Amino acid sequence: MGTPDRPLSRRRLLGGGALAVGGGVVGAGLTAGAHAFAATDAQPATPAAPAVQVLGTQTVPFYGAHQAGVDTPAQAHAAFLSFDLRPGVDRAALGRMMRLLTDDAARLTQGRPALADTEPELAAMPARLTVTFGFGPKLFAAAGLDSHRPTSLAPLPAFPIDKLQPQWTGGDLLIQICADEPLTVTHTQRMLIKDTRAFGSIRWTQRGFRRSRGMEDDGVTQRNVMGQLDGTRNPKLGTPVFDGAVWVDSGPTWLHGGTTVVVRRIRAELETWDAADPTAKEFAVGRRLSDGAPLTGVDEHDQPDLAKTNELGFTVISESAHIARAHVTSDRQRIFRRPYNYDEAPGPDGNSDAGLIFAAYQRDIGTQFLPIQRNLAENDLLNDWITPIGSAVFAVPPGCREDGWVGQSLLG
Amino acid sequence: MGTPDRPLSRRRLLGGGALAVGGGVVGAGLTAGAHAFAATDAQPATPAAPAVQVLGTQTVPFYGAHQAGVDTPAQAHAAFLSFDLRPGVDRAALGRMMRLLTDDAARLTQGRPALADTEPELAAMPARLTVTFGFGPKLFAAAGLDSHRPTSLAPLPAFPIDKLQPQWTGGDLLIQICADEPLTVTHTQRMLIKDTRAFGSIRWTQRGFRRSRGMEDDGVTQRNVMGQLDGTRNPKLGTPVFDGAVWVDSGPTWLHGGTTVVVRRIRAELETWDAADPTAKEFAVGRRLSDGAPLTGVDEHDQPDLAKTNELGFTVISESAHIARAHVTSDRQRIFRRPYNYDEAPGPDGNSDAGLIFAAYQRDIGTQFLPIQRNLAENDLLNDWITPIGSAVFAVPPGCREDGWVGQSLLG
Ligand code: HEM
Ligand code: HEM
Repeated sequence: MGTPDRPLSRRRLLGGGALAVGGGVVGAGLTAGAHAFAATDAQPATPAAPAVQVLGTQTVPFYGAHQAGVDTPAQAHAAFLSFDLRPGVDRAALGRMMRLLTDDAARLTQGRPALADTEPELAAMPARLTVTFGFGPKLFAAAGLDSHRPTSLAPLPAFPIDKLQPQWTGGDLLIQICADEPLTVTHTQRMLIKDTRAFGSIRWTQRGFRRSRGMEDDGVTQRNVMGQLDGTRNPKLGTPVFDGAVWVDSGPTWLHGGTTVVVRRIRAELETWDAADPTAKEFAVGRRLSDGAPLTGVDEHDQPDLAKTNELGFTVISESAHIARAHVTSDRQRIFRRPYNYDEAPGPDGNSDAGLIFAAYQRDIGTQFLPIQRNLAENDLLNDWITPIGSAVFAVPPGCREDGWVGQSLLG
Repeated sequence: MGTPDRPLSRRRLLGGGALAVGGGVVGAGLTAGAHAFAATDAQPATPAAPAVQVLGTQTVPFYGAHQAGVDTPAQAHAAFLSFDLRPGVDRAALGRMMRLLTDDAARLTQGRPALADTEPELAAMPARLTVTFGFGPKLFAAAGLDSHRPTSLAPLPAFPIDKLQPQWTGGDLLIQICADEPLTVTHTQRMLIKDTRAFGSIRWTQRGFRRSRGMEDDGVTQRNVMGQLDGTRNPKLGTPVFDGAVWVDSGPTWLHGGTTVVVRRIRAELETWDAADPTAKEFAVGRRLSDGAPLTGVDEHDQPDLAKTNELGFTVISESAHIARAHVTSDRQRIFRRPYNYDEAPGPDGNSDAGLIFAAYQRDIGTQFLPIQRNLAENDLLNDWITPIGSAVFAVPPGCREDGWVGQSLLG
């Protein structure tokens, strides 16, 4: 029995000769370029050293060609922080800020306290922490570098489905913090906010969650707050399709190896969603609720057949179904979705305030995200039950080496 | 590599003959009365059937002498919901409500959908879900049963340290929902709120978290949002000391086998806490930040020596230290603490809005909680950095059998 007073280690429960493997090993040797589960903290599963690895000590490398937190298998908890720059913050100041923040992130993600860490004890559980930085459209002008802004890095056009609220929209700097442990997110957020104080003020913060580590096998598709299996058809981490869709390889050279992210806060209209019958819900998406299989298939990962018709001559998957409207055929046009659920306190009437922090990564917003979002805004059965209430776009600089800092290729 | 598209089962990674044990087995056979980790979903660790148990399917029994969620090793996520009864809701109506809610809880905690579940898919991951009901002071009069109210079940007296806000204070009905998976809490909360609608409106909801399952070995003391090891000296689950402190065995007979809970929202003044040096922080509590050991000891679980003096003749642990002021010598006077962290969006200035949802269980508020809280309010070095901003008290009825419902001994 594990009580607060008498720790009962799983390690001790496992007798000699027992072989047990934590999530750590999953990543080892099986990945190409992706930040896999616990790539750096893998323990060889030797019968001589029986141990169940605890997940809290797992780390994701900070330095590399790409910033972590994009091709990292999504951690269970996230905070998205958006800042407005203070007037007068220029290229030199931004460089100072990014040096500070890079140093914080490099330490904290590896389980070490930040330089002026006020709660160093809380740094000891990285739990696959990643910190990912993004630059909003107005940052470029502030730095006197608007010519280096990717052309399509601009606030999205207004869509008829939008009910955007200023409190969830825009911003000059994004800090995305993800970890499997919520207290790690809390601590990291505090430390990073301290180091932004001289340069910016918080515009919005959004806290979200996905399925907790260990609840199901790693890699099983999670459900979202609407009950749907969410993430089935997404570019696979570490594949050429992923790399070709996500990492910038043209346009401003400073961004090569980076990406762009669109962060939309999308409210789920759960009261009316609950009133809909399961058939209508499945028809709206084009997939079954029970197992996520397309309405034309049997298993979750069966290819949807968008052309297949029923006896009446209608397509089985409606042309207005979410997956029909959102699907693109060219791999280069795909987006990578990495959404988190949010669930705030319900109102006195008991109505939920929940939905998705929809984060999508792509080389280019204009040729990848926008056409899909336009398609959906124009016609998507799911629109009856979802409402975008926030929107922001950021360029995500490439990763850096140990002697560098994030954003250096632009600001350095 | 576990990608959203290609599940990589840990089960498959484990070769034949491997023996791996999930949290489930920890509970089996090791507990006396307590709801231990995954008591009902334990899998015998037979070398013939190698499997790492996923934590999402673990369940805690619903029926029993006590409601679950008190002596259940604390789950990672919690929602505390407080309701005001609608005018005219009487004993009969309360009985109808508790029958409905009991039925919901009995199903959901076992991984089955509620009767009119609108997202039955989300019921499939109980993740040690418990639902615990409590009755606030005014519920008794509404039911015409004020004579059955435990004498000390009344709003706590005002303390000089308090800055109570009505939005976090009071309430007639408590629903405490705890699970290792936050989406399970979200879904359960929605289903239960639906069934309270005819009877009450939400007064407040508080969402909190503790260390996620699997981050450290079960039973290792967690840290709270202030960085302290929190929970070291607490009655041990399933021991006579726990039972004698927590389960009601005198006073109104309907409550025997039940308990009472005090839910205080206590803000952590993290900006000034951060400014304090580690020595001052440790002096305020009487324990070391690094490992939680008392200032008079070496290991976390060493008995604090409150009488030990230093060369100047002062006690090593200050008489005003939190653990000196909070300590009681009689086991019957102890309280059982089961706090959750909260961390809401920081203000535009970047200041945190974080602290503890301090939930304490005891037989009797008047002779257990109140004297400790009075002691602390009068003099506790920690008071410089913590501010109670919410307060509520509830009687937690005993558990029920399959043919009964929670609260029946009062309302039936
Ligand atoms: C609350 C809002 C949303 C919900 C609940 C939602 C839900 C879903 C679900 C259940 C699927 C099918 C399973 C899967 O492949 O993951 C899906 C697929 C998809 N969604 Fe969404 N979605 C939302 C918003 C969006 C937005 C805003 C976009 C892009 C602008 C988008 C783009 C896609 C794409 C590209 C697919 C895969 C289509 C395919 O190729 O099969 N979704 N979504
Ligand atoms: C934000 C508020 C609080 C914080 C951060 C806090 C923190 C702590 C810490 C770090 C310990 C030492 C480790 C342990 O035994 O768990 C402790 C012990 C304790 N606290 Fe608190 N506490 C808070 C509020 C309260 C309140 C309101 C009460 C009761 C009214 C209380 C009662 C106790 C008791 C009984 C002990 C054990 C004392 C002993 O016998 O050693 N605490 N607390």
